[in-house]
Amino acid sequence: MIVRDKPNAFMLFFVVQGSVVPVIAPQILISAFVAIIVHLGYLYLPSFIPDFTVTPFVLLGVTLSIFLGFRNRASYERWWEARKQWGQLIIDTRSIARQAQTYIVDAPTGTTSQLSSGKANKYHRRIALLAVAFSHALRHHLRDTDSTDDIAPFLTELDKITIKTVQHIPNFILNLLGAEIRTALQNNLIGEISARNLEERITAMASVLAACERIHNTPLPFAYSLLLHRTAYIYCFTLPFGLVASLGVLTPFVTAVIAYTFFGLDALGEELEGPFGTSPHDLALSSMSKTIEINLLETLSEPHLPAPLLPKKYNLS
Amino acid sequence: MIVRDKPNAFMLFFVVQGSVVPVIAPQILISAFVAIIVHLGYLYLPSFIPDFTVTPFVLLGVTLSIFLGFRNRASYERWWEARKQWGQLIIDTRSIARQAQTYIVDAPTGTTSQLSSGKANKYHRRIALLAVAFSHALRHHLRDTDSTDDIAPFLTELDKITIKTVQHIPNFILNLLGAEIRTALQNNLIGEISARNLEERITAMASVLAACERIHNTPLPFAYSLLLHRTAYIYCFTLPFGLVASLGVLTPFVTAVIAYTFFGLDALGEELEGPFGTSPHDLALSSMSKTIEINLLETLSEPHLPAPLLPKKYNLS
Amino acid sequence: MIVRDKPNAFMLFFVVQGSVVPVIAPQILISAFVAIIVHLGYLYLPSFIPDFTVTPFVLLGVTLSIFLGFRNRASYERWWEARKQWGQLIIDTRSIARQAQTYIVDAPTGTTSQLSSGKANKYHRRIALLAVAFSHALRHHLRDTDSTDDIAPFLTELDKITIKTVQHIPNFILNLLGAEIRTALQNNLIGEISARNLEERITAMASVLAACERIHNTPLPFAYSLLLHRTAYIYCFTLPFGLVASLGVLTPFVTAVIAYTFFGLDALGEELEGPFGTSPHDLALSSMSKTIEINLLETLSEPHLPAPLLPKKYNLS
Amino acid sequence: MIVRDKPNAFMLFFVVQGSVVPVIAPQILISAFVAIIVHLGYLYLPSFIPDFTVTPFVLLGVTLSIFLGFRNRASYERWWEARKQWGQLIIDTRSIARQAQTYIVDAPTGTTSQLSSGKANKYHRRIALLAVAFSHALRHHLRDTDSTDDIAPFLTELDKITIKTVQHIPNFILNLLGAEIRTALQNNLIGEISARNLEERITAMASVLAACERIHNTPLPFAYSLLLHRTAYIYCFTLPFGLVASLGVLTPFVTAVIAYTFFGLDALGEELEGPFGTSPHDLALSSMSKTIEINLLETLSEPHLPAPLLPKKYNLS
Amino acid sequence: MIVRDKPNAFMLFFVVQGSVVPVIAPQILISAFVAIIVHLGYLYLPSFIPDFTVTPFVLLGVTLSIFLGFRNRASYERWWEARKQWGQLIIDTRSIARQAQTYIVDAPTGTTSQLSSGKANKYHRRIALLAVAFSHALRHHLRDTDSTDDIAPFLTELDKITIKTVQHIPNFILNLLGAEIRTALQNNLIGEISARNLEERITAMASVLAACERIHNTPLPFAYSLLLHRTAYIYCFTLPFGLVASLGVLTPFVTAVIAYTFFGLDALGEELEGPFGTSPHDLALSSMSKTIEINLLETLSEPHLPAPLLPKKYNLS
Repeated sequence: MIVRDKPNAFMLFFVVQGSVVPVIAPQILISAFVAIIVHLGYLYLPSFIPDFTVTPFVLLGVTLSIFLGFRNRASYERWWEARKQWGQLIIDTRSIARQAQTYIVDAPTGTTSQLSSGKANKYHRRIALLAVAFSHALRHHLRDTDSTDDIAPFLTELDKITIKTVQHIPNFILNLLGAEIRTALQNNLIGEISARNLEERITAMASVLAACERIHNTPLPFAYSLLLHRTAYIYCFTLPFGLVASLGVLTPFVTAVIAYTFFGLDALGEELEGPFGTSPHDLALSSMSKTIEINLLETLSEPHLPAPLLPKKYNLS
Repeated sequence: MIVRDKPNAFMLFFVVQGSVVPVIAPQILISAFVAIIVHLGYLYLPSFIPDFTVTPFVLLGVTLSIFLGFRNRASYERWWEARKQWGQLIIDTRSIARQAQTYIVDAPTGTTSQLSSGKANKYHRRIALLAVAFSHALRHHLRDTDSTDDIAPFLTELDKITIKTVQHIPNFILNLLGAEIRTALQNNLIGEISARNLEERITAMASVLAACERIHNTPLPFAYSLLLHRTAYIYCFTLPFGLVASLGVLTPFVTAVIAYTFFGLDALGEELEGPFGTSPHDLALSSMSKTIEINLLETLSEPHLPAPLLPKKYNLS
Repeated sequence: MIVRDKPNAFMLFFVVQGSVVPVIAPQILISAFVAIIVHLGYLYLPSFIPDFTVTPFVLLGVTLSIFLGFRNRASYERWWEARKQWGQLIIDTRSIARQAQTYIVDAPTGTTSQLSSGKANKYHRRIALLAVAFSHALRHHLRDTDSTDDIAPFLTELDKITIKTVQHIPNFILNLLGAEIRTALQNNLIGEISARNLEERITAMASVLAACERIHNTPLPFAYSLLLHRTAYIYCFTLPFGLVASLGVLTPFVTAVIAYTFFGLDALGEELEGPFGTSPHDLALSSMSKTIEINLLETLSEPHLPAPLLPKKYNLS
Repeated sequence: MIVRDKPNAFMLFFVVQGSVVPVIAPQILISAFVAIIVHLGYLYLPSFIPDFTVTPFVLLGVTLSIFLGFRNRASYERWWEARKQWGQLIIDTRSIARQAQTYIVDAPTGTTSQLSSGKANKYHRRIALLAVAFSHALRHHLRDTDSTDDIAPFLTELDKITIKTVQHIPNFILNLLGAEIRTALQNNLIGEISARNLEERITAMASVLAACERIHNTPLPFAYSLLLHRTAYIYCFTLPFGLVASLGVLTPFVTAVIAYTFFGLDALGEELEGPFGTSPHDLALSSMSKTIEINLLETLSEPHLPAPLLPKKYNLS
Repeated sequence: MIVRDKPNAFMLFFVVQGSVVPVIAPQILISAFVAIIVHLGYLYLPSFIPDFTVTPFVLLGVTLSIFLGFRNRASYERWWEARKQWGQLIIDTRSIARQAQTYIVDAPTGTTSQLSSGKANKYHRRIALLAVAFSHALRHHLRDTDSTDDIAPFLTELDKITIKTVQHIPNFILNLLGAEIRTALQNNLIGEISARNLEERITAMASVLAACERIHNTPLPFAYSLLLHRTAYIYCFTLPFGLVASLGVLTPFVTAVIAYTFFGLDALGEELEGPFGTSPHDLALSSMSKTIEINLLETLSEPHLPAPLLPKKYNLS
């Protein structure tokens, strides 16, 4: 995710980092090149250059804009929903750690200190660490990368062995959390009502997981993207034939500007559609799971907290 | 559902699998054919060819685009809501299986092992299998196909006999789940608060069922589709009369491109409106109910898990 | 509600049932008639026919389309929300019947059979029948018709006498349901937590009632409809003056097509705005309340179930 | 709120009550007057009349329409959300009255009659009357009027004295409701779980209060309204310069129609933005709080119910 | 936030306070300046001035409008969601104070007075003050300013020392609230069910915190803003070349009006995107946290309440 102040009007035209231009440079250049050829043809071989007039481009341009707008809205909503789900994950992990400390208590001692001693304290620690592990595991799950190294510090030795045979790691960690609540309940460290409260947090984390999987696995209908892609290509590559009669030598410049707009919006819609990747337009999952780690270790009163991630070249990964 | 990477710009024009072109090829060809006739008429019998000028098409084109955009937005929202409901089903089935293991326990033994022995274990298994059966039954219910074979492995012999007299199979399976909770409660294997928690999951599954039935049974208002269809047909079939005077021999090409866009968007809106079918644009219900089956059997520690469904020719059914 | 497959392209132009054409035929014909007069005037008395040129119609047409689009979106959302509320009613009535069977039990006998004997069974039956009565009463309430005959089979003799003095019948039935839960609680047939669960269902049914009343009683702001109506009328009736100079004899045809689109979209927006009527564009409330009746009687293991409603001439009422 | 059937096409042009025309008549007349001046200037002093051509108006008109559409959508959503909040208030007040009767019972007598005798009955009455008082107080709070007279019949003498020193009357009434629940709990007339249920209703009423305050206190960003106002004024007052060359004597008529559309939509957006006033476009708060009063008095089995409000000249206040 | 009545039509053009004009004055002036140069060039050096014709500007103008509309909608939704979250905070802080008084009671005395004596009273006060501190801390957190002075009056001496070592102050205050509930529970001043109710309020406040952090930390995708900025700049700075041939001396005026509209909408979208700042378009966080302070101190029956914030030059900060 690009994090930077808006550049001023002059610098605006020279920003490359975070722009969609590198992605669509070939298409823009080809459009401009077609326009140059068309213009030369119009000057020296006019009979070979069909004159489309500008009319079809007005008809088609409005339709294309409306539907690109519709698709970009849908893509943006996916991107923003994905961000909301991770925001929800931040709430749920913070809450499960706080609620574990509130509800799981060593009944007989009746201690009121923030750091409950004895068995309850082990549960507080275990639940918070599993929540951290879940957030790292979810990130790797959504980026199709290997989570082993990132989650190892938060698991027991037994977990690390069991996890090798597991297909769906985030779901497995949720089951581990459920098992903690069950044993706390059986050991009378928590009441039934409070246990239900913690269980609700696990269900909420399961909701985040399923919602992220939904966004990750179900792209916008392929036929839409295909139709819009095709129309955008036909539009931009034939546009010079419509403009050359009235614009002459300016045709390549105007074609390039319009191609930049249409291809740029098309490419952005496509990039936002899958918000969990590592491109500059994607969400800062690494930074957010590191934030969860810091928050929860602070709740456990850990003396040494890891540093938050900082953007590299304005890009927060 | 089509699952594939975006093809490159050149290949883009030759993709057929997943495109809407096969559906609307007749309409595009007829439009182009009309355009050829109109052009020939304009050349040889100009007095018989009315000149519509392009004005009415600009007026109507904007309106048509705005309303096609409105309808496609509504259709897409139905499609995406249907996907959300199935995502919710994945959450609810995973959660009911996990919560059954957490809450239904053989009280006296106080065992903490993942595989509770005795009666409780039978409930864990029964509830998970009924949840799998529900997801298969729902798929068949929404596709108007027969679910008998797919749900048989997850039912008892008695269920299989009773189910023959039942009209609404998914609803019947929810009633079976409710009966399990009632008997677990009466046998003191679960507390009243926890039973309510499981009951909430059943209500959530009933919500998914009713929402999917809503989308399946209530299409967009027929008169809308009719009005947009008619306007799109009149528009595309009379368009050549508006273009021929200024475009000449290019009329068929331009007509075909515009017809492709309008008929394509119209057809896509119509296909997404009913997202539970088996066309390449519909949701991958078979794959999702298989995922539920795998997840829940893994939760039951089954040794042999079925393989997930893979796309055939990029199409995940 | 019109329920039919999409007709093919040729038949499309001859479908009347479910089309909005009958509603707006007068307006279309008047527009076309005005256009014929204008054309004749243009031919024989040109000095009396003002030439508006097409410019104002482009300016106004875009604005009108955008705002018709806005209004139709709002109307559609009302229609779809109304359908969602009825879908919610289906969930809540099914759930209250299932939950009554799960939670209200004859404590001492500890029977596990589906058909609890004794007092509990009477509550199961009474609650399910009241839920059916509520759905019929709500339908009549929203259609401003008399519900007496349709709800009588589900009420006691005492209810039938009391209900004659009642102003708000659906609300009265909810109060009867609340009274059942109170007496079940006082007779120790249900626990306090479970009673709360049933009470939540009644509150959910009260939400459906209030939401439907909101949609029924609060139309879109009248001034909007008025402004859009007026603009649409002025637009379509003056359009021939703008087209006649360039289109000549084609003016009436083009005017009629554009009038069909604008008046049709305006009329459809207006019809969907109030979705509880009995026009072909309205929701199939009769069919849905019959479905609720069938579902709940099946849950009570009634031997003879009523038949579901079938569409008449593609129209499901 | 205007409540009337749609007038027929002819009457449509003469409806004043409920139209936005009276509000914007000055602007329309000024636009038309400017157009007349411009036309006269064009005829007799053409060199003093700049010719804008229609091009800038096409460019600006589309932009203005899109942004007026955006603002009207936002205003309508505020208006509709306000209506939803009041619908929610109807649900919550009805439910708190019903739930008070269900949950607050004179424990020892075990009476099952609808009219519980003794202490419990006093709570039923007090809670219902406070809920009515809240709805009247909220209406006055949102309309910045004095609620003393309207809420007096539902308060005790002590309340009436205390309320004189209170700044925020609706919030004070919610605190009174909370105090009732506390004392009922302390007198063992209600269980802890059921008390929580009633408390949830108070929280829901507090949500309605805060949401209505949000809509009332936070208008759309002022700079938006300013920008759209200014652009609409510049547009309509310079439009005659763009039209006069092609339209001649028709310029004033066309200008007036377009000014009616743009100023009308601008004015409507502004009126709907603050939906709690007493203009004909605002919500019928008086009628809705009277409905709440009638519903709750009926629940208390009051013999004499007040009459519902009726529209005056189609206007329901 | 600007709070003022709409000025009349004449004054409208001279309002500066709250307008976006000061922000975009440079761009408007540069556009107009370019237009003057182009016009002079067109008069005296016509061969050096390319004639773009107006066609590309129509093509691009519609696209730009649609996407500016899309972005402004998204920005507005962020702004309005931020306001909703603060409205939710008002509800939650009021509710936690009221619920603390309802649920935390000195069990043995059974007092029913509004001002519970003894230990419970200390909890009421502590919880309300912490809720006030949270709202001030959240404001400073979102504005990246130092909260020490504003929250000091609501904390204990111990808190003030501890807080110096804390990174995330709002989260720390929520943990303090959680600790109060834990000790109240351990001292038997509150039941388990009621404690859960208070804990839900804390979770709700944590949701507000996370949602505000989401809006604060995740701007709209940078590449969108960049693409729209660039297109708007190219559009407005080349527009004179398209208009000069037909508009002549009016070119600078028309260019300035169109530049005002496009740059204004672009700038407004950007300002609303981050709604927590202190510009006149941002939310009145200071006023709202002061309102929370007043409401909660009034609930504690404090004799001297602070005065609400008033707008300065129509600007409520």
